[in-house]
Amino acid sequence: MSRIADEIRPFFEPGSIAVVGASTNPAKPGYNVFLNLAENKRKGLLKAELYPVNPRAKEVLGFKCCPSLKDVPGPVELVVIVVPAKFVPDVMREAARKEARAAIVITSGFSEVGNYELEEEVIKIGRDAGIRILGPNCVGIFDPYTGVDTVFLPLKKALEAGEEMISAPKPPKGRISMITQSGAFGVASLDYMAGHGMGVSRFVSLGNKCDLDETDFLEFLKEDERTDVVLLYVEDIRNGRRFMEVARATARSKPVVVLKAGWSSAGARAVRSHTGAVAGSDEIYDAAFRQCGVLRARTMEEFFSMGKALSMQPTARGPRVAIITNAGGPGVMTVDACEAKGLVVPELSEATRTRLEELVREGKLPPFASIGNPIDLTVSVTDEMFKLATEVIMEDPGVDGLIVLGLHHPPGLKGDYIEAIAELARRSDKPVVACDIGGADMADYVRKKFDEKGIPAFESPEGAAAAMWALYAYGRYLEKVKQAP
Amino acid sequence: MSRIADEIRPFFEPGSIAVVGASTNPAKPGYNVFLNLAENKRKGLLKAELYPVNPRAKEVLGFKCCPSLKDVPGPVELVVIVVPAKFVPDVMREAARKEARAAIVITSGFSEVGNYELEEEVIKIGRDAGIRILGPNCVGIFDPYTGVDTVFLPLKKALEAGEEMISAPKPPKGRISMITQSGAFGVASLDYMAGHGMGVSRFVSLGNKCDLDETDFLEFLKEDERTDVVLLYVEDIRNGRRFMEVARATARSKPVVVLKAGWSSAGARAVRSHTGAVAGSDEIYDAAFRQCGVLRARTMEEFFSMGKALSMQPTARGPRVAIITNAGGPGVMTVDACEAKGLVVPELSEATRTRLEELVREGKLPPFASIGNPIDLTVSVTDEMFKLATEVIMEDPGVDGLIVLGLHHPPGLKGDYIEAIAELARRSDKPVVACDIGGADMADYVRKKFDEKGIPAFESPEGAAAAMWALYAYGRYLEKVKQAP
Repeated sequence: MSRIADEIRPFFEPGSIAVVGASTNPAKPGYNVFLNLAENKRKGLLKAELYPVNPRAKEVLGFKCCPSLKDVPGPVELVVIVVPAKFVPDVMREAARKEARAAIVITSGFSEVGNYELEEEVIKIGRDAGIRILGPNCVGIFDPYTGVDTVFLPLKKALEAGEEMISAPKPPKGRISMITQSGAFGVASLDYMAGHGMGVSRFVSLGNKCDLDETDFLEFLKEDERTDVVLLYVEDIRNGRRFMEVARATARSKPVVVLKAGWSSAGARAVRSHTGAVAGSDEIYDAAFRQCGVLRARTMEEFFSMGKALSMQPTARGPRVAIITNAGGPGVMTVDACEAKGLVVPELSEATRTRLEELVREGKLPPFASIGNPIDLTVSVTDEMFKLATEVIMEDPGVDGLIVLGLHHPPGLKGDYIEAIAELARRSDKPVVACDIGGADMADYVRKKFDEKGIPAFESPEGAAAAMWALYAYGRYLEKVKQAP
Repeated sequence: MSRIADEIRPFFEPGSIAVVGASTNPAKPGYNVFLNLAENKRKGLLKAELYPVNPRAKEVLGFKCCPSLKDVPGPVELVVIVVPAKFVPDVMREAARKEARAAIVITSGFSEVGNYELEEEVIKIGRDAGIRILGPNCVGIFDPYTGVDTVFLPLKKALEAGEEMISAPKPPKGRISMITQSGAFGVASLDYMAGHGMGVSRFVSLGNKCDLDETDFLEFLKEDERTDVVLLYVEDIRNGRRFMEVARATARSKPVVVLKAGWSSAGARAVRSHTGAVAGSDEIYDAAFRQCGVLRARTMEEFFSMGKALSMQPTARGPRVAIITNAGGPGVMTVDACEAKGLVVPELSEATRTRLEELVREGKLPPFASIGNPIDLTVSVTDEMFKLATEVIMEDPGVDGLIVLGLHHPPGLKGDYIEAIAELARRSDKPVVACDIGGADMADYVRKKFDEKGIPAFESPEGAAAAMWALYAYGRYLEKVKQAP
């Protein structure tokens, strides 16, 4: 275990947590941070000792409140700070006296608005005391395994209109970890992943990166047994050389997908005004990512599609994709999307064609099925037909991966094809991804069911193609590394 | 009214309809086609006389059945044919004797599977009798205004697991018309539009285009008062010269958005095997679309985003986009996406900055708001702040369009910003589009609410950017036409 990984562990797995600024006022972030932790503590999920710190409260949500950090009866490993910016240095000094190891500074109003001196002061206190700092200006940590959760956006909201609804859901336990420079995009990502069948392992919002940055957390995740895939949202990378070193080492054991925002010229200007960071030339970033095996997404859909696929399916041995569908047009759209990403949609082998044509003659596939690539089973498709075609394709040595574009509308589809395909995928080392188009209940049902059974499902041909590309590109990188280590 | 438009009208607004092959067996398309029409007739939506034709049934869904077309007691303007392919010529001959004007041949098994002779026979009968034919191998027509609906995929399905759920919903009345060569993509599109706040005027699935093609329907939609935007999905275009003529004339009064599938080399091969059509060089298509003012989408998300925006918002006078957000990272992603599309995200004018900075000083915008472009109101945002910032931006002569990237998570947002922004947009001739990211109830609520109030809302920065680009590109085309008619 590297030193940095050792220093980062208390952020995710602390023995004790004090929330300085824990509040009884539901309108304040200090309330919601403490609420998350208190609820996880009550559920038995959070094992850490938990202390609210606030001189003006006797108790917060049933927990006895300490007037200041020094009054906390036990040791404090992790300090979460939610007080106004000007008070943060004092809290850090108290944390130092309490021998805290880690501090999450949620508070904003530091370098991101030009308040460099205050941030420097905080950095210095942390450095002198050996406290590692996350933030400031961040939403902190979410870990569904340990119950550490400082993401303070309220789970439910009451609208003016009176309705109450889920506003900021958190995804279930899973194998995807996320490092994000933008807290807002982080919160949106948790919401998105919760709604798209993606499970999370560790989530960290970096904020101003006054101390710990993307590379530090990447180094931690590299060794993390709970993490299979790393999603990384950044606007700038602090120390390029060290990042490349760590990213290269990480990519050898688990995929890293990056969304590097601010790649356009106006985007770079926006990054400067948003974080004060100079983003640097996008060509350099691009070359660096490529060199160290980091997969780059250019759009939000690509980012999540790639991460989802890599967390659920094996890599592809090559770029050759077969498509089985019941929808001719979307089949063609998928071919276009695959080829645009650099994948190949080859003609089927003679043996495979012959086998499929036999099935047509035997009446096991529709008489008007199109036996090409895509294989189009038409609107006459049944659950069984999807299964039969998938069986044939999975055995074709000329196919490296399969996209099942099973639109749910034909009357003959009852949903059983999902388990049948998932079962065939489980028995194979070829990746399978799915796509279903539509906003109806059944579209949601089909996609969720595929996800639950380990087949990542997407809402568009482009999402499925990006997913398959990631499985191919990462496989190719691993192959390259194996041959020239 | 052109002759062709006159000949196409009976497909959407027939005085009488006979469904040949109407069935009492819910597993057959002939059941669902008739079910749609029968229900619309009972609701009073469908004004046309409606006759099921089937020699082996006494009645279908309560309607007295005619053994053959010649037994129908009144005239038949539109014949819908759902019998096996080999019987279609006979039905067409009866339709001729009945002096029908229009026929929708749902049945497949014609040229798309190499059965050219049978298709020729059908064409000849139609031509000799003056019956215009839609199809074969199509899902036909959906018109929520007149109740003509031959899209035979069942609305609800019972899964093997026993649950019943909405499978193939139809969108509400609206101003978007769609012409699609792929029936499957057409059905998926109706499902998608129903779920994404898009209302439809006329929908037509072309199938094999044995007689009527995309250009014919485009010519009808050009004059159609109910259509504001045309979405066109094609894999090949039959008569390029005539298409360009009609498309050019159409684009002068309403936008046409095309998704031309099969633009990759493997995609073109897939089109050949799927429809038998030779797609032709994509560069030629691209140049042709550009010349006649047809806006081209390259992905499904772009296609629907562009159509949705053009149906709801005015065009932009120029490429200069302002972004108001409470989410720094997604703000930067939106800038990147805008610039990638050819839009400009300029610095704000001195006057606008000054006004916004005043609002910060007055405490009306958050102290840490970032006054640039994007304007980042941060997590401290309230409904009122979105309104104030929008007011200032809508008055800035240096801004041609606004993207509101209002992520719903901050506790201060109660939903009232939606109506406030919609009201400001209504008073302005600048386009406004919205984006909210996430899968939670409230993300859906916010997007739906924006849609209902006339502001098209999208799930990703890229969707919003594609939408704004379409508003700009179409505005630019109209300007060009005005200057050099």
